[in-house]
Amino acid sequence: MSTDLSHRPRTGVAAAGRPHTPPASVTAAVDRSAAAFPEVAAATPARRRSWLEAVADAVEEAADRLVRIADDESALGEPRLRGELGKMTQNARYYAGVGERGEWVRARIQPGAAVGQDLRRAQLPVGPVAVFGASNFPFQFGTLGHDTCSALAAGCPVVVKAHPAHPLLSAALAELAEAALAEAGAPAGTFSVVVGFEAGLILVDDPRISAVAFTGSQRGGLALVERAARRERPIPVFAEMGTVNPVVLTPAARSRVAELAAGFVDSFTLGTGQFCTKPGLLLAPRGAGVPDAVAAEVATRSGGWMLTEGIARAYREGVEALQDAGAQLLASPTDAIAGFEARAGYAVMPAVLRLTAADLAPGSRLLEECFGPAALVVEYRDLPEALDLLGRLQPSLAGSVLGSGPEDPDVAPVVARLAAQAGRVIVDGWPTGVACADAMQHGGPWPATSRPDATSVGAEALGRFTRPVAFQGAPDRALPPALQDANPWRLPDRSPERAGATA
Amino acid sequence: MSTDLSHRPRTGVAAAGRPHTPPASVTAAVDRSAAAFPEVAAATPARRRSWLEAVADAVEEAADRLVRIADDESALGEPRLRGELGKMTQNARYYAGVGERGEWVRARIQPGAAVGQDLRRAQLPVGPVAVFGASNFPFQFGTLGHDTCSALAAGCPVVVKAHPAHPLLSAALAELAEAALAEAGAPAGTFSVVVGFEAGLILVDDPRISAVAFTGSQRGGLALVERAARRERPIPVFAEMGTVNPVVLTPAARSRVAELAAGFVDSFTLGTGQFCTKPGLLLAPRGAGVPDAVAAEVATRSGGWMLTEGIARAYREGVEALQDAGAQLLASPTDAIAGFEARAGYAVMPAVLRLTAADLAPGSRLLEECFGPAALVVEYRDLPEALDLLGRLQPSLAGSVLGSGPEDPDVAPVVARLAAQAGRVIVDGWPTGVACADAMQHGGPWPATSRPDATSVGAEALGRFTRPVAFQGAPDRALPPALQDANPWRLPDRSPERAGATA
Repeated sequence: MSTDLSHRPRTGVAAAGRPHTPPASVTAAVDRSAAAFPEVAAATPARRRSWLEAVADAVEEAADRLVRIADDESALGEPRLRGELGKMTQNARYYAGVGERGEWVRARIQPGAAVGQDLRRAQLPVGPVAVFGASNFPFQFGTLGHDTCSALAAGCPVVVKAHPAHPLLSAALAELAEAALAEAGAPAGTFSVVVGFEAGLILVDDPRISAVAFTGSQRGGLALVERAARRERPIPVFAEMGTVNPVVLTPAARSRVAELAAGFVDSFTLGTGQFCTKPGLLLAPRGAGVPDAVAAEVATRSGGWMLTEGIARAYREGVEALQDAGAQLLASPTDAIAGFEARAGYAVMPAVLRLTAADLAPGSRLLEECFGPAALVVEYRDLPEALDLLGRLQPSLAGSVLGSGPEDPDVAPVVARLAAQAGRVIVDGWPTGVACADAMQHGGPWPATSRPDATSVGAEALGRFTRPVAFQGAPDRALPPALQDANPWRLPDRSPERAGATA
Repeated sequence: MSTDLSHRPRTGVAAAGRPHTPPASVTAAVDRSAAAFPEVAAATPARRRSWLEAVADAVEEAADRLVRIADDESALGEPRLRGELGKMTQNARYYAGVGERGEWVRARIQPGAAVGQDLRRAQLPVGPVAVFGASNFPFQFGTLGHDTCSALAAGCPVVVKAHPAHPLLSAALAELAEAALAEAGAPAGTFSVVVGFEAGLILVDDPRISAVAFTGSQRGGLALVERAARRERPIPVFAEMGTVNPVVLTPAARSRVAELAAGFVDSFTLGTGQFCTKPGLLLAPRGAGVPDAVAAEVATRSGGWMLTEGIARAYREGVEALQDAGAQLLASPTDAIAGFEARAGYAVMPAVLRLTAADLAPGSRLLEECFGPAALVVEYRDLPEALDLLGRLQPSLAGSVLGSGPEDPDVAPVVARLAAQAGRVIVDGWPTGVACADAMQHGGPWPATSRPDATSVGAEALGRFTRPVAFQGAPDRALPPALQDANPWRLPDRSPERAGATA
């Protein structure tokens, strides 16, 4: 039987991993998920909150062990992983709270709105959700990450397809979560994990699966989008994919080039460049010495380990492809390229490359993401050229502009341009780091995601796993609890006064 | 040059129609639309309200002429069309009001939510929208229907692809609307209409078009979904398509069979059965005489004209295909089938067909929509069998259950089953007739629509044409008006107290 081996990025050695789930067992997991759905959907948000909190508690109790397993499998380092585990449990509690707060239900009651009948509308959970977590955030975007927690909070059972980059961590998290959920009284089948590529395909094809959430590469996301579209009944696929996130330094930013160069390098090398919000392209005013400052900064940094052998190889090939396409490697090119081969495991060195504005032609290979600690620097002549260059890029998850402060007149036009092509616009900050907050948007137009209207982080993440249903003339006892007269879920704003006024 | 001829359903004769828009002119229309977008998006909701109201006023002033043109081209009858025109202008004003009310912007302000920076989020208009209106509601779902008005209210310019079933009406509406918008101060390119199949394809392929809204057949909708997915940058397609909408009579409904049979026939023959919410399948308790009662009622009805020759042919073939697949024609079979050929123009007769429960196998041709005044009747043994039969159907836009009143115990389980597979569930009412109200949901899971999370009617219809963007640390003057401190758009609920508490 095939297995997902547990690879050690620091050495390249593989340990025993997890066997792939046999097809019949994948279907059995969906059977249990579908059987659990009515109870999960009907559970009060307070009850679902207790389930998620039990999971968060169990993960925190096992934190030391989980962080060790995660570090073995990811080489992301214990401090980073400990912090990430803490954020993951915080997020689980956040989604539990958002679920209980109830805005996501969007309940609306309009007496007499429809041909003389009472009309009520709510977002109802869609059914079992298949989650494909990411490799680069084994806690926050992994087995128990944003997608899993927001789906459970919205009343949908989850079947996770374990990421092959961390089979032992996925198994440990799955075991903990299943036990905690059972202990907390959640129905069997509320949450399960399957292993293997084939298992993932069976999940996506299963007619009981009602939505798919994915975080990862464009290639992986597009494959799922296409597969789900070929189902007899296509279902929504929320794929959050990697992009080249641009950063613009305004002309006035030349007063603090050294500080900004250091901040840029910090941001694009964070986690060995394995962030979907990594700033991949810096647009800097010509003649301010930015390329040299960035190169000097990169030269002081050490390399790191990529998550998998494939990711490391793709990074090395990507840096070479950028040069083949005309980019000039600025930072210690010989050391960096030679060093790739010399170091142990999946080690790579950071790289910064320089382009001319003319190189940034729409459709150029230079505009595609190079996952890992590589970034491009382009100098622009004036602000109109900078705006023009931004317009040639693919849409992205995020984009930043850094200037000379709140009075910098060039910030506003860059913000407006970025807002037209990114999910999040940051001023005087770097795109890496996504806060889990009500007002967060982690998404963006194609190819940043397959669903530009959705976010995979924040309060609105629950909405992805719901579908609106209107009830016309239904007696109270035939309504879901969210719409019953007694408002047993204590949902807010079900009957805004203005609703009647304009109907 | 090719033209869309203006056909007269009552006679089958074609009059002069409208020439197809040349490819260069389609692109020029999108050029103007893209050029108008920044001003349309930045216009205050109050200003956009005045544009929509100007359009509504202009249409009302020209009502007599428009209704005559529409009746010539659709044979839907002047009373129905006059009522529909009134609803269309009411809807235009409704969307203008919803736009100004501002919930659709979903503005959220969270000081300090993101890595110490202020975080603000709003739904921003996506860009020019292509609208493909329906044939069956030339006013409410046509050139100036729900899609066009909700897109304009949300700040998106619209390019309509005129429906070939009513070229003269589309042209008249376009001319009126363009003049009214110009008079009201809307930028050139805010609204335009193109003609011809090829023009529609050019629209969908144009990189400036940011979303597509469609109302019509499954074949047409799926073709647009697939075409948009093949773009270099795929865009959302909101296709609202036809389905078999089920109606269940509970066992206790046998006490009023005659009344319900008449209501059912009224509903499925309304507008010669050309409603996307037409009840296509009646599930009735065995032994209550429902098939005979429905057949007797149908026998008293006259035929009507279909919108186009193609639709009339598809209906005749559909009724034959249902019989080939095992359905038994109940209502005056000889007269109905023979009459199809004998009458003038695109005339058809209503038809009711009977099936056994065993005929309703998943995937059967019997489960596909037959657009026009045809319906199926199936008798069930008991309520569990009725629920099982519902589960074999494709999801639908709407579904009804009619019983013996609010105390009927069988209503609730049927409502629950319908809610799992329909966008709207009606109790003791018929599915035809969609109120334009805040709590309305006009949509449903695939294949009812391509986007089960969306509605094409009601307050939430605006959201389809927006995309969330988060602004992190942006100075006030770089923010869109919706998120500025002074709240110039006077949007509600931008800073709910609870937002900070759980972040």
